[in-house]
Amino acid sequence: MISVENIARQARLAARSMRRVSPEQRADALQKMAAKLVECRAEVLKANVADIEAAGELTPAFRKRLQVNDKVFDYMVNRLQVAAALPDPVGRVLEEHVMPSKLKVQKVAVPIGVLAMIYEARPNVTSDAASVAVKSGNAVILKGGAESLRTNMVLAEAMRDAAVAAGLPADCIQLIPSTDRAAVTELLQQDRYIDLIIPRGGKSLIQAITGNTRIPVLKHYDGICHQYVAADADLNKAVSLVVNSKCQNVAVCNALETLLIDSKAPQELYWAIAEALKANQVELRGCAETCAIIPDCLPATEEDWATEYLAPVLSIRTVHGIGEAMEHIAEYGSGHTDGIITESPLLATEFTTNVDSASVLVNASTRLSGGGDYGMGAVVGISTDRLHARGPVGPAELCTYKYIATGDGQLRD
Amino acid sequence: MISVENIARQARLAARSMRRVSPEQRADALQKMAAKLVECRAEVLKANVADIEAAGELTPAFRKRLQVNDKVFDYMVNRLQVAAALPDPVGRVLEEHVMPSKLKVQKVAVPIGVLAMIYEARPNVTSDAASVAVKSGNAVILKGGAESLRTNMVLAEAMRDAAVAAGLPADCIQLIPSTDRAAVTELLQQDRYIDLIIPRGGKSLIQAITGNTRIPVLKHYDGICHQYVAADADLNKAVSLVVNSKCQNVAVCNALETLLIDSKAPQELYWAIAEALKANQVELRGCAETCAIIPDCLPATEEDWATEYLAPVLSIRTVHGIGEAMEHIAEYGSGHTDGIITESPLLATEFTTNVDSASVLVNASTRLSGGGDYGMGAVVGISTDRLHARGPVGPAELCTYKYIATGDGQLRD
Repeated sequence: MISVENIARQARLAARSMRRVSPEQRADALQKMAAKLVECRAEVLKANVADIEAAGELTPAFRKRLQVNDKVFDYMVNRLQVAAALPDPVGRVLEEHVMPSKLKVQKVAVPIGVLAMIYEARPNVTSDAASVAVKSGNAVILKGGAESLRTNMVLAEAMRDAAVAAGLPADCIQLIPSTDRAAVTELLQQDRYIDLIIPRGGKSLIQAITGNTRIPVLKHYDGICHQYVAADADLNKAVSLVVNSKCQNVAVCNALETLLIDSKAPQELYWAIAEALKANQVELRGCAETCAIIPDCLPATEEDWATEYLAPVLSIRTVHGIGEAMEHIAEYGSGHTDGIITESPLLATEFTTNVDSASVLVNASTRLSGGGDYGMGAVVGISTDRLHARGPVGPAELCTYKYIATGDGQLRD
Repeated sequence: MISVENIARQARLAARSMRRVSPEQRADALQKMAAKLVECRAEVLKANVADIEAAGELTPAFRKRLQVNDKVFDYMVNRLQVAAALPDPVGRVLEEHVMPSKLKVQKVAVPIGVLAMIYEARPNVTSDAASVAVKSGNAVILKGGAESLRTNMVLAEAMRDAAVAAGLPADCIQLIPSTDRAAVTELLQQDRYIDLIIPRGGKSLIQAITGNTRIPVLKHYDGICHQYVAADADLNKAVSLVVNSKCQNVAVCNALETLLIDSKAPQELYWAIAEALKANQVELRGCAETCAIIPDCLPATEEDWATEYLAPVLSIRTVHGIGEAMEHIAEYGSGHTDGIITESPLLATEFTTNVDSASVLVNASTRLSGGGDYGMGAVVGISTDRLHARGPVGPAELCTYKYIATGDGQLRD
């Protein structure tokens, strides 16, 4: 019988040792983790086949998440190498000033401490989370979906060995070797040892976690993402941005779900967008005004505006000015990613100032609101939370800070 | 019967309006709030007298917190004026870069949204919290201790009037006009409208709150603060730093509670420190080694090392080298403020690198680990949390950020 409390305690001790690990050692550890995975490729794939066989009947989407084929494997290895090459986030001087008393005050980035990742049966999250945690000097406890346990155990063991070879404490990466739900319950009680929980999964999972722990939770809720096409939008740009936002990958959180078109936009723009989307097999659901312009557009219901389809379906609403567009986003959006397509810098500024989403875009695909496209490299997810980290969560976001004040005998009056 | 849900909903709407308020308007609002308080001075003091009379028998400490005399009142007004003059934290570009695709990515500070302050019967917190909230563009819900309700109502009403006069929404400052504990319970359930809860008070209050809400909580736990006097410390500097850290105000979270003296330090240093502390009526409790050197030093128990006295009592432990000092701090400290007194830059770096507290000091009084002495102006407290904000919490810490990505048609490959 495993003790989750013991795992958490070990993680705390590992986090303390991690403070003495240099940036070079962390980068070396990530390179060694990548190399070790390559060495264990056959073993990982074999364990994954066993996981898939044991799981029995699977939906195609579930199977796709669970499966580690050569392409997924190469990607996992690559992410570890990318993380190794990223700038080191620990020890960055975020602010520095000297007080009139000559006290020098520095705000310096330090690791958060102990992270716990709770996620679905997606083995690539195991290596991604470990890479970002090691890069940021944290210890991490991994609890992946039950169906992926065999794969995860091989991955975790390989990465631990590599970490030790680089001089890191083995327990900077720990996997909970259990498919028991009680293990999660026990994990949520370890507020003495765990600093942050990062759950990846459905809204109900995340809400169940936040309702049952004192540990801070970094939430990754859904993405009901919008593009607002202003009246002055460039037609070709609008068509390609909408198609890319919706179709490049319909199943992800930053895919477009609702299109807002300004009522002053020409009918040609509606038609061109509709045609391009239909050519990509996207089902369109519109408000009455939109349906009157676009042929074969199904009527949208109230529920459509609040739905994250994650499928080739798009809702379209005609809005009367930017104010109505922003009202719609405030009412139905999830604060993930929302964009405007316009040639007017004034309208763009109005939009970016007043739309309160983690990512606000001007003339860019919603699919670009991610760590890679913001130049952040490896991320563990895109936070829809407002506290601590918002948007892509990479190594820098998994740091906190401390103040270092250096004086020469300064006293308080 | 008041509806806390309604108050929270109004705060959310006010937070949305606050996005359109300019830095100049916020500064003007703070100046007007200060002026309006001055206008209402007699009314505030009268309400405070009524609060104190109604409260009946009070401990001196409780009475001191509850009482608004001329000195406290002037301080409250001054803090509003100081906040007005601080640099505006909203809209700061925290990071900015252009991707190879020419996508311009900016990370911009924005208000968190809706804050809820839950605090004891300390009317100065009412104006401090309002000043920091307005400065950072947030809406705030205030729930102060029941005994201070009359005073708080006068303060809140005056500040609301002033905010409106400056063009801010009245509901950017709301006080829950109730002494009912059920109001707090209801407040904790408003996760739809409230973004952050900041409790000020005892550990049990804070733990009760974190255990009963899905809303993130910024915790302000106790300060078990240490100074480690290295063997090479300058005697005079050490004496004045220890005395100031302990005696300048014994009742606050960044007062010194445990002194660690290196066993290689000369006995003269022990004696000089002990003499100076005794001259300030501080009771000393030491480990066996310390008691063998300092006459009249009482023996410390295990409990002493884990105690925040908030009183003229100091525990002293002799440690054998910096490693033992850091171990002691890791074991018994609360991660608030810990310092080293040394003339060696190497020892200082060893200490600041490995001690993981919100403030780590070198040759400076623990009493300097605060917003004012770090140049931050107004603060609502000193966070012992690791997430989002650590150490002093001022207007900048009550912001989050969003990404603004500006392109010219950039797509995802």
